[in-house]
Amino acid sequence: MSIAVIYDNKDPKPWVDALSKHLPVEKIEIYPNIEEYSKVEFVLAWKAKKDDFLKFPNLKAIQSLGASVDHIFSIFEVPENVQVARIVDFRLADDMWEFVLSIILKEMKNISQFRVDQTNKLWRPTKYKHITEISVGILGAGEIGMHVAKKLAAIGFNVSVWSRNRKFEDGIASYCGSEELEIFLSKLDYLVDILPFTKATYHLIDYNFLKKLKKNAFLINVGRGEQVVDEDLIKCLDEGHIKGALLDVFHIEPLPVSHPYWKHPKVQITPHIASITNIESSILQISENFNRMKTGKPLLNLANQKTSF
Amino acid sequence: MSIAVIYDNKDPKPWVDALSKHLPVEKIEIYPNIEEYSKVEFVLAWKAKKDDFLKFPNLKAIQSLGASVDHIFSIFEVPENVQVARIVDFRLADDMWEFVLSIILKEMKNISQFRVDQTNKLWRPTKYKHITEISVGILGAGEIGMHVAKKLAAIGFNVSVWSRNRKFEDGIASYCGSEELEIFLSKLDYLVDILPFTKATYHLIDYNFLKKLKKNAFLINVGRGEQVVDEDLIKCLDEGHIKGALLDVFHIEPLPVSHPYWKHPKVQITPHIASITNIESSILQISENFNRMKTGKPLLNLANQKTSF
Repeated sequence: MSIAVIYDNKDPKPWVDALSKHLPVEKIEIYPNIEEYSKVEFVLAWKAKKDDFLKFPNLKAIQSLGASVDHIFSIFEVPENVQVARIVDFRLADDMWEFVLSIILKEMKNISQFRVDQTNKLWRPTKYKHITEISVGILGAGEIGMHVAKKLAAIGFNVSVWSRNRKFEDGIASYCGSEELEIFLSKLDYLVDILPFTKATYHLIDYNFLKKLKKNAFLINVGRGEQVVDEDLIKCLDEGHIKGALLDVFHIEPLPVSHPYWKHPKVQITPHIASITNIESSILQISENFNRMKTGKPLLNLANQKTSF
Repeated sequence: MSIAVIYDNKDPKPWVDALSKHLPVEKIEIYPNIEEYSKVEFVLAWKAKKDDFLKFPNLKAIQSLGASVDHIFSIFEVPENVQVARIVDFRLADDMWEFVLSIILKEMKNISQFRVDQTNKLWRPTKYKHITEISVGILGAGEIGMHVAKKLAAIGFNVSVWSRNRKFEDGIASYCGSEELEIFLSKLDYLVDILPFTKATYHLIDYNFLKKLKKNAFLINVGRGEQVVDEDLIKCLDEGHIKGALLDVFHIEPLPVSHPYWKHPKVQITPHIASITNIESSILQISENFNRMKTGKPLLNLANQKTSF
């Protein structure tokens, strides 16, 4: 039996090293350098390609190397006897809250404008809003979304969430379903997309959706690029309805150099860094999952096609 | 009897309007358009010039239009029968914490670097630190400094303060006096200057002081420009000892266009906006102080030459 690591476009060595430490007797191979595909029962995967998983005839478990599992379900019809697990890491949720907070504060306090003023040697004090005057809406109230919502509310932001099911959490307004989307969007200064990628969320953020936002709202996308119709967002920015957007995720990553986002004056790009899976804090649940698979137990943090949102 | 408003370089009208509402029967004059100087007993002041106060022979009280009073004490030998009050406004302290937090987070998360990368169409994910890994030191533990310290500690930063007297506050390390300055400075990732301007703090932040900071520390000055020896800071930045500086306050404001800070690649300038006195939330204590002066009572938020730090 062996373990395979599929880690698209990135260096798998740190993962392999950490795994070897925790599972010293197991054979760990890096895809596509697999000696015998039939011996692999456990695959660690991040953004495998279509048909990659089909090559493993005795696959029993797929461990996503992040919080999301859409990169597995969207390309692979997972058989019933194959378990899929995602990483649940307090660090991922904390990363997300720290990142979202930094973007909101930077916008609120006009920091970018002062930077431009500095290059022109312009001394122009401007007024700004206070945390208690700002409404933030979180799209998606899963573990990460609710963590961000609670943390933002704790320091004084007016926070609401939109999700499939009603949430009951002190100090956070809960909206659910399409019938409550309009009222949710109409009051926001900042909309933060933390939705997972599912069929229901694909291209959810289109022109009609964006027009429901209050004029001059700001979009932060740390969910998935596939949720945004890029041309529609650009249209809303150009029409002056949306004030600006911070995008950390894209349909194709790295974002192709020809994409109009790069040069759009109202778009800020970060290279998918809002939250990064931390090897140290997640390696234990992975090695535990390997042992569970070996002994036929259900994995930790199981995911299925219907999970979340 | 009348009230005079001295408000250098700024528009005094919003203050006059707000005061008129709260003290509708009083005569309010804007300096230097004063009908009879001998009738003025109460002066609202922000950055008066040397000798301005001397013109009012019957002055009984000076109300600073901000949290600081150095702009009064540094130019005027205040007679014993003249009370000086400063504004204590929860908004000022909240502004300060929000501003300091936005700067620290923006630096921590490499947001400026991503902005530069975007102009070059570069997709370069970089690792960053988490809030719990960051040490922030606050110079000055008065009302505002301690508020900032407590708020930063509450969201997970490692916070220490340096002040004249020992502070006892859960979760905040307290250092005091010159003998504990070196150990305080040696551990910081971010040093935040929130000191008031006194004789003791003038040019406190010089080359020797800055060299005591850990290599690659970041300086945020939201205290007073007079505390920093500009050439020494520039030297430490150029030598690579200090990573960068965000300066909101300067020896002369607006910062003269010839000052090297404007074009220094490691200096970020904001135009003294870290905290701005809020008229709505401070007008009540000012009108109350006027009534106290009239009835011979001690003013709220009294200040004296030895105040704070």
